[in-house]
Parts: sequence; C-alpha cells; structure tokens
Amino acid sequence: MSWHEETLHHHVRESLRIDEVIYEGATAFQQVKLFRNSSMGVVMTLDGIIQTTEADEFIYHEMLVHPPILAHGAVRRVLVIGGGDGGCIREVLRHPVERVVMVELDEGVVTLSRQHLPHHSEGAFEDPRLQLVFDDGAKFVEECDESFDVIIVDSTDPVGPGLVLFQEPFYADCRRRLGDAGVLVTQNGVPFFQRGEFEMTGRTRAQLFAHSGFYFVSVPTYFGGAMALGWGSDGTNLAAVAPETIAGRYAAWRQVPRFYNPAIHQAALALPNYLRAGGPKAGALT
Amino acid sequence: MSWHEETLHHHVRESLRIDEVIYEGATAFQQVKLFRNSSMGVVMTLDGIIQTTEADEFIYHEMLVHPPILAHGAVRRVLVIGGGDGGCIREVLRHPVERVVMVELDEGVVTLSRQHLPHHSEGAFEDPRLQLVFDDGAKFVEECDESFDVIIVDSTDPVGPGLVLFQEPFYADCRRRLGDAGVLVTQNGVPFFQRGEFEMTGRTRAQLFAHSGFYFVSVPTYFGGAMALGWGSDGTNLAAVAPETIAGRYAAWRQVPRFYNPAIHQAALALPNYLRAGGPKAGALT
Repeated sequence: MSWHEETLHHHVRESLRIDEVIYEGATAFQQVKLFRNSSMGVVMTLDGIIQTTEADEFIYHEMLVHPPILAHGAVRRVLVIGGGDGGCIREVLRHPVERVVMVELDEGVVTLSRQHLPHHSEGAFEDPRLQLVFDDGAKFVEECDESFDVIIVDSTDPVGPGLVLFQEPFYADCRRRLGDAGVLVTQNGVPFFQRGEFEMTGRTRAQLFAHSGFYFVSVPTYFGGAMALGWGSDGTNLAAVAPETIAGRYAAWRQVPRFYNPAIHQAALALPNYLRAGGPKAGALT
Repeated sequence: MSWHEETLHHHVRESLRIDEVIYEGATAFQQVKLFRNSSMGVVMTLDGIIQTTEADEFIYHEMLVHPPILAHGAVRRVLVIGGGDGGCIREVLRHPVERVVMVELDEGVVTLSRQHLPHHSEGAFEDPRLQLVFDDGAKFVEECDESFDVIIVDSTDPVGPGLVLFQEPFYADCRRRLGDAGVLVTQNGVPFFQRGEFEMTGRTRAQLFAHSGFYFVSVPTYFGGAMALGWGSDGTNLAAVAPETIAGRYAAWRQVPRFYNPAIHQAALALPNYLRAGGPKAGALT
C-alpha cells in the first residue's frame, strides 16, 4: 500500500492512498501522476502537488465560475487561463455564453485529463463555443486584443510555471481585456497557510481595480481551511450585488449545481476578522 | 524528523511534523500525545486523532460558542460537555454569563491542557463563574435537574468514549435541560467524509426539536472541508434570527473575536446543494 504525500507546505501535509496507479510520466512542462483513491476517485498531481480529484472538484470549479458569472449578469464571452482538466469550462458552458477561450500552457495535461478524468469536462472540450489555445496565459493576455466579460484564472500554486499568474503585469493585462462590467477571478491559495500570497495579490488587485476583494470556499483536498478566490472589477462590485439579484439570476438559470446556490454565494463573501486589514493577528505560525 | 499521521479516515490522512515531543502517555481514559509543530504550535492528539492545535483552535471554538449565544440573545447559564482543553469555556466566559458548568470525562486532559495549552483556557479555569465537573457527560445530563440557555457539546469524534454523545438518548436528555429558548450545539464531523454521521444526527435532532439544522466552519487541521455543527432548539430558530438582530447583539457585546463576526454568522448557515435532503449526489466515494 503506497501513499501520495503532498509537499506543498513544510510542516503539515496531506496524504492520499494510492489504490491504483493510472499514469505516471512527464509532459513538456511538468511531472504528472494520476492514481485512483477509494475516497476521492481519480486524483491528478502535477510536480507532486494535488491538483484535482474526481470527488471534490465540483466544489472548487463551481465556486470559481458561478459567483462572477451570476454577479455580472450578462456574460457572453469568457476567458479561462489554465484549467487543463476541463472542470472550469464544463461549469462555464452551463451558462448561456457565446464564446469561451481557454488558454492552457500544457497540452499534455488536457490530453491526460480527457482520457482519465472524463467527468471533469463532460464533453466541454467538444463544445462549439469553446476555442482551446495551447499557450502561455500571461503572454496570451498581453498580446490579445479581444474583450471578455469574465476572466477566470484556474492556476496551479504560485510555484514553477504558474508564478507569473499571481503577479501585477498579468493582472494589469487581464484588466485591459475586460469589458466595462468585466470581472477577473483568481485562485489564491489557503490564507491560513499562505498569508503572504493572500496579502500580496489582494494589494495588487486593489491598486488596479475600482472594486476588488476575496471570496472563500473550502475544498476537502486543498488542505488548510478555506481557500481564497481573488476578484477585481471596475464595473461590478461582487461584494455589493444585492442578494435578491443573485437569487433572481439563479432562478432564471434553471440549473441545480452540486454545491453552489444563492445562499452559498453570499456566504462565500464573508471575511473572518483575522483576514481583515488591521484585524486580530492569527493563522499559521510559519 | 518524525510525523504524526492522523488515522481518522481510511483513504486520506493528514500529517503534522513533530518538531518537539512535549508529552506522551495515557490518562485513565485515552492515549494522549502533545507535540510542537512549527506551523500549528502545540498540538494535542487523543488516541491518535488530532483534537486541537494552538494556531487554529480559535476558528473552531469561536464558531462553536458565539453563534448559539448571540442567536439566543439572553444567555445566563451555559453547559459545556467535553471541551477539556479549555478553549470552549474561554469563549463562553467572554459573554456576560452568570454560570458555566463544564462536564469533562477525563481529568487528565484538563490537567495536561492547563499545563501545555495555556492559551486555550487563558485563565478560564479560574473564573468564579465556572463549575468544573469530572463525569460522564451523558450521565450528567440524564441525572441533572438544572436548566441551561445553551448546551455545547465539544466532543471527540464518534468513536470510543465519545460515541454516546452522538445518539438520541443524550440529545433527548439535553433537550430536557434547556430553557424555553435554549439551544443545543454539537460537533458533527466533516460531512464530505462523514456523511452518515451528518445525516443520522440531523434526523435525530429534527425528530426531537421544533427547530434544528447545521451550520458550518472550516478548520484547517480538521481535514476534509467544512465541519458541520449541529443545533436544535424548541424556542430559537438559529436559521431565522434576523441578521440585524445578530449585528446589534455583536455591536453591544463590544468584543473583536479573531474569526467570528456577524457576516461570518450568516455565512455559516448556508447549506450547499449536495448536503440538502434530496439534493444532488456528491461527496467522498467511501
């Protein structure tokens, strides 16, 4: 019996039992391992870090996608940076959008995900509304001149090739690619352990956007308490859209996600005191 | 370098690095280990299961205590079952209560916690409003004839000596010890992995109380996503207290907890679709 031991944090770690190895190898960019775990289903790790599991991906992908789309209210064009497993575009394409551009660095991750994690994409890669681009996401937004209503950054952690996706030039380029009410949403780690990343990205977005902030979701295999999703927008204040507006759009949407609903939408926006600027000092010691 | 490897779940586990062993031994009831972890501070395990850590206990204890007390609004007498580390009574005693009775099975846990986890209790064990009883919690509520405004069950997981604290006879006895508006709150595990416990305790409380439900909190070292805290009351509908009422009581309380605030109070009550009765099927596979 072997275990996958996560190496993201230094003093704490999570482990998932490997009940069957499905794939172990390398793409042009990173080490990939796919294995079956009896509780979590198929698990994918990149460079030793758990990226996604079949059993809990719905929580993460729904919360990355539905809050910005329902807060905006009239989304037609969406840009997804990263998201190679296909879970993010699956959720985006449940909305009546016209066009989705997905820019993934690593074609190997998409190929392996389509083969071994088919429930993540559920046919989304075949949707005629999708344009799939294999390119560097930061370079793409720098050079692109199209406008989007929502940009979703479904990135790895800020180590290795994904680091640029947490930095100011990338956020500024994203802002230039957003329509008037456009919203940027980014994956920002678990602030209990990754407080520096939380504060740095929060400051950067606050300097760039008229409105910005975080919302939160707790994903079982993203160890360490609630994960922070960062957002920024010049025209849509995610924290101030009326609850009745969200509830009305949800009802009109006529879908029943596995995790998301209007009460969860509002709940995700609540910030604990210790994460407020100037709040009580608390969190992991190192 | 050694690691504490949690054994609560079968296919997933969390591990905390043991940077210094502080105590290892047994009380009359269970194996106790106390060690220092550079991220989490002092950690206490009972029978191999992580109970509490210095760095994240505030999240759990504040959320166990403040929602029922502020929802009730006029709490004078509180009963705490378990809670041997002292964190629960520390938070209770921040409120203008008259009397707190704490019933802990294991005197050894209190003695070790006072010595090695002094920040958990912060003097609460010396508070003249506290009566500390070493007894079986289930037996105590069965035999006691005092009435309480809030009963908090700060228990271990439903294995070993704590199992009776998840069962109908105990909940029924708690109900008999509650005043008209009285509220029972219980620790009910992480429903993503412990769905059976979630549903069983939910049904039992729904049969006993006029109002019942769950609220949620994500505690970093309680692996597996949000933890469910169960509640039941005949006179206080925790899910229906107006947000302005909670906000008014919070303002009048004049405290700044590290985690809890009125937005967090409301947020904790949101139930994801997959945990609703008849909701979409999702969660851990085993």
